[in-house]
Amino acid sequence: MRIIGIDPALRITGFGIIDENKGNFSLVKAGTIITTANKPLPMRLNQIFEGLNSLLFEFKPQVMVLEKIYVHYQHPATSFLLGEARGIICLAAAQANLTLEEYSATHVKKSVLGRGMASKEQVQRMVVALLGMKILPKYKDVTDALALAIAYCYFSRAYKFRD
Amino acid sequence: MRIIGIDPALRITGFGIIDENKGNFSLVKAGTIITTANKPLPMRLNQIFEGLNSLLFEFKPQVMVLEKIYVHYQHPATSFLLGEARGIICLAAAQANLTLEEYSATHVKKSVLGRGMASKEQVQRMVVALLGMKILPKYKDVTDALALAIAYCYFSRAYKFRD
Repeated sequence: MRIIGIDPALRITGFGIIDENKGNFSLVKAGTIITTANKPLPMRLNQIFEGLNSLLFEFKPQVMVLEKIYVHYQHPATSFLLGEARGIICLAAAQANLTLEEYSATHVKKSVLGRGMASKEQVQRMVVALLGMKILPKYKDVTDALALAIAYCYFSRAYKFRD
Repeated sequence: MRIIGIDPALRITGFGIIDENKGNFSLVKAGTIITTANKPLPMRLNQIFEGLNSLLFEFKPQVMVLEKIYVHYQHPATSFLLGEARGIICLAAAQANLTLEEYSATHVKKSVLGRGMASKEQVQRMVVALLGMKILPKYKDVTDALALAIAYCYFSRAYKFRD
């Protein structure tokens, strides 16, 4: 099964594509979609859409996992911009007929590390170890995205066990 | 010049397309894009995207005017969903190479009625009168969208006078 995890943002969207086979993970592709800060918003949204579409076209994941948003009561304007970026990503998923899942950061940590209160650095180290990566990605957005994809595998396996 | 005004929302997006020629307005098409409430979010966003794209393809406006968002500090979750719908609309504008403008509701009222504190009903009546419409649209989202398009004409004329 091939899964793409996405940590969406207007400036830097992290993505991580992995294959899962009987509990073994392998890294397919991971990186960022970065938009040009001084471009108008519609063009930046289009950069995200086109960047993501070309990934979906090239790597053909079956499932997309997005970080579930914790709405910031102190920062509604930020939530709003994040909403715009996230809408674009949901649209790309719908057009590619992908299964779309959403997990909160806490759920991801619980799934990957066994506890929800783990630090970002612990998540990073676990992701790198599980995927046998030799270099730590520059952006945490990338390891966060990979963690989302890994969490999906754990969740869906747990679900199978319950059957 | 042909302008499309849009009052975006996840459930009911109002649109209004008008032609302006030397200060005269004519109605081209107005209505709503309504999404299915019990469908998953990505499919609803895709409904907005496809609905809007087919309007842009059929009527080929040169300018799109969106309502500028007043971020609700008490309702960040609503802002967030609105952001998702709005992101889709910005994307459609970028892909169709449209000029995109944003006006606040207050600016629209000031432009169409001469004062920012006018009621929604006053805006409705003025829009209907300016466009010579025989029937009041069922949804206020439609007259709000038309008001956005009319406001653009007033603004751009004021700009020309200043030159």
